Amino acid sequence: MKIILDTMGSDKGYGEIVKGAIDGVNELGVNIVLVGMEDLLKKELSKYNYPRDFIEILNAEEYISNEDEPVLAIRRKKNSSMVLGLEALAKGEGDGFVSTGNTGALLAGGLFIVKRIKGVERAALATVYPTRKGFSFMLDIGANVDSKPEYLLQFATMGSIYSEQVLGVKSPTIGLANIGVEEGKGNALVREAYKLLLDSNLNFIGNVEVRDIPEGIADVIVCDGFMGNTILKLTEGMAITMFSALKDEFTSSFKSKLGALMLKSQLKSFKDNLDYREYGGAPLLGLKKPVVKAHGSSDAFAIKNAIRQVKTFSDNNIIEIIEKNIKF
Amino acid sequence: MKIILDTMGSDKGYGEIVKGAIDGVNELGVNIVLVGMEDLLKKELSKYNYPRDFIEILNAEEYISNEDEPVLAIRRKKNSSMVLGLEALAKGEGDGFVSTGNTGALLAGGLFIVKRIKGVERAALATVYPTRKGFSFMLDIGANVDSKPEYLLQFATMGSIYSEQVLGVKSPTIGLANIGVEEGKGNALVREAYKLLLDSNLNFIGNVEVRDIPEGIADVIVCDGFMGNTILKLTEGMAITMFSALKDEFTSSFKSKLGALMLKSQLKSFKDNLDYREYGGAPLLGLKKPVVKAHGSSDAFAIKNAIRQVKTFSDNNIIEIIEKNIKF
Repeated sequence: MKIILDTMGSDKGYGEIVKGAIDGVNELGVNIVLVGMEDLLKKELSKYNYPRDFIEILNAEEYISNEDEPVLAIRRKKNSSMVLGLEALAKGEGDGFVSTGNTGALLAGGLFIVKRIKGVERAALATVYPTRKGFSFMLDIGANVDSKPEYLLQFATMGSIYSEQVLGVKSPTIGLANIGVEEGKGNALVREAYKLLLDSNLNFIGNVEVRDIPEGIADVIVCDGFMGNTILKLTEGMAITMFSALKDEFTSSFKSKLGALMLKSQLKSFKDNLDYREYGGAPLLGLKKPVVKAHGSSDAFAIKNAIRQVKTFSDNNIIEIIEKNIKF
Repeated sequence: MKIILDTMGSDKGYGEIVKGAIDGVNELGVNIVLVGMEDLLKKELSKYNYPRDFIEILNAEEYISNEDEPVLAIRRKKNSSMVLGLEALAKGEGDGFVSTGNTGALLAGGLFIVKRIKGVERAALATVYPTRKGFSFMLDIGANVDSKPEYLLQFATMGSIYSEQVLGVKSPTIGLANIGVEEGKGNALVREAYKLLLDSNLNFIGNVEVRDIPEGIADVIVCDGFMGNTILKLTEGMAITMFSALKDEFTSSFKSKLGALMLKSQLKSFKDNLDYREYGGAPLLGLKKPVVKAHGSSDAFAIKNAIRQVKTFSDNNIIEIIEKNIKF
């Protein structure tokens, strides 16, 4: 098992990524290809103890930043760590690819270089969404801003397979994110997708109200990328806003300051439950090889989790199962 | 100033509505028409002190429940409190209408009976959305599940007028809810709406990320009804989920129980800030007369606030200003 790791474009620099790679080698026994500036990476690697032949370097002098326009960047920055890494993946020089870089570019690069599985109409970006009951697997969270009902059916199929094979959920329930539970609710897209899902052999439980998503209403939440991204970003925004509001309330008097101090560890444990980094990265589903987008500010721990995730992704032959089950 | 008040279809029964009406008469000096079962209302009114000629009753023997199919209910339940109330409004027997009943039916009834302002392509349901900085005015929150870019421009125009005239915001900033701030972000609908808004003479500040909406990023948030409803429902869902999660954390040990007790009033004050009932109801914009949807579980306080809102709505000639400013 060899994982290709993009060391560039991270908010935290390559140091955390190298550390995560070493933890991946030592704890998970995987081989790693680090893509980035060879000199810097060699110097960084020399600080650590690890079986030397488990990590190799693919030199890249250029990188794609978050400010780069995704499609142009993939086309023009041929020597960037992301393009070189994806090309190595496409050529079979590794079993999976992890990047913390520009999400749009990773999507574009995945489509142009790694390419879609035959029969898959659109690739989807997915994520583990933490809920009160544990987590839901949600897709598409932003790969496609305009979708057709058929895409949503394919997202549901891919999400069901990933949830079962990688996340270990038995016969995952599939919910269609909507503004009401009854059949016929929602816009034209979801009304049509509802019918397709009903006719499928998935464990479809119907429309799920967005209000109930944070509680944990279905194992897989299917939506178009515009809605999925809205749900994800608003969840983050609400968490941030509620925490700062609570903090203000809690520090408004001496008594409440004292109370807040006593609750500090509880508040922290609550916040940790919302930490997306615990769950690794966001897989791109529908491509011919495993590609995972890790959070831009991933630390070594998050990188190791993303490596573990892409390893499971590859170990469980998700791509083959999707290829067999996708309808087109 | 005469406000027509639907006394049926509320989760709390007509008692709270009658009490809210009396508070409206005594505190705001408005006249009220109560629509509902005459005998019951007379008996309820006899419990209170108020200037008797300020409240009249319009008898209705039937009502529209939340389970009724909206369009069918408006067409068939001709003697329902909602239909009779809206008809009285359309005939000029009152200056505004408030109902706690079936939202879809109120929308359908508003369109069929009160009718749209000339030039308005779609009516929008709007709400005051509480934020960290105060509030934003958001529309459409669910009247139209499939929208065109031109509708969003009209929603922005109506929202700007309402925000300025009723909520007292000077030259309100208009933000287009989106999944990124740059021009060109989002789906086809918002990309086109962006251009129309840019060309308008509104105080348009561009795309606003849904993540930033809870902080308070713009005075008016414009979106299609599917997205607006998603934002509203997820905000409620997140608040509910975070409160129960916090409650669990806070009662997990003796120390934290004690801490939670000390923070109780702060938690309550925080929760009150999220209370939609403080802000009255959701106005339906684009109709020829003021119509406001109050929350289904409105208490007397919320009803009085909704009466105050429809009074300001009418006092400030919003309908005329919309009629003059709408582009079609």
